[in-house]
Amino acid sequence: MTDAHRPTDAEARALADGLLRRCTHLALATLAGGAPHVSRVGCAWIEDAGLLILASDLATHAANLAADDRCSAMVEGAAGKGDVLTHPRLSLMGRAPLADKGAHRDAFLAARPKASLFYDFGDFRLRRIVVERAELVAGFGAAYRLGPSDLPGAAS
Amino acid sequence: MTDAHRPTDAEARALADGLLRRCTHLALATLAGGAPHVSRVGCAWIEDAGLLILASDLATHAANLAADDRCSAMVEGAAGKGDVLTHPRLSLMGRAPLADKGAHRDAFLAARPKASLFYDFGDFRLRRIVVERAELVAGFGAAYRLGPSDLPGAAS
Repeated sequence: MTDAHRPTDAEARALADGLLRRCTHLALATLAGGAPHVSRVGCAWIEDAGLLILASDLATHAANLAADDRCSAMVEGAAGKGDVLTHPRLSLMGRAPLADKGAHRDAFLAARPKASLFYDFGDFRLRRIVVERAELVAGFGAAYRLGPSDLPGAAS
Repeated sequence: MTDAHRPTDAEARALADGLLRRCTHLALATLAGGAPHVSRVGCAWIEDAGLLILASDLATHAANLAADDRCSAMVEGAAGKGDVLTHPRLSLMGRAPLADKGAHRDAFLAARPKASLFYDFGDFRLRRIVVERAELVAGFGAAYRLGPSDLPGAAS
């Protein structure tokens, strides 16, 4: 199979970084007994912490992550005009270990004020997406592979 | 764990059916060597065929599905105002076997005229999402489980 990916350059890194920093929600893929499961989860990029997701234990993805924290997340730019298939999006692959809900509370709520309605509920847990690799689609036919060094704040 | 799901009723079935029939793209979760992978794929609901996705062999999800056709797909309503986390969305779980690209050509292109730019490319394949079960989120805290009988056109 031809490798259709372009060499990852500064422009691709900047686009990926911007998608991460601005995302308010993502499509989260988890494992349900080894089979794929995808659902919507709210998130925020927090400086010095990276990409955090807030999920209720009542949601299927929470049970999936509790059993196996491997995940993939797709983040996209704000809905613009035209064909969604040409809009930039970033697929992240990695793990989502639990994060310190108390330590990140102020920063998360500063970024997502609406989450104050449920952040303190006992069934809500914070996880951090630790990115091992990523795929960026900048537009139709414009795909890039990114490694940890291309996404410094999200991979450590 | 408490089951937070509501009893599936006619209103939930109608909402799920509408999301399926109107979706133009979806977030597709596949397995990459047993780990989750999620990416954007174009789709169309075709009467008597169900939910069809069109993907290039150059995309990671195509290689993933060729190795293991288990998948999950999240479809959403058109981007509206307000908090995305309150918007209806439907997570489908099942398989995506290859479909007959020639047989569905006219119907797919009638539904997605822009796909005529690449539908006939040799690296594009059509797959049908055969739904085994689904989860509907109608709004914040309003979750439903659906089985094949709740989504008659998508499950057979």
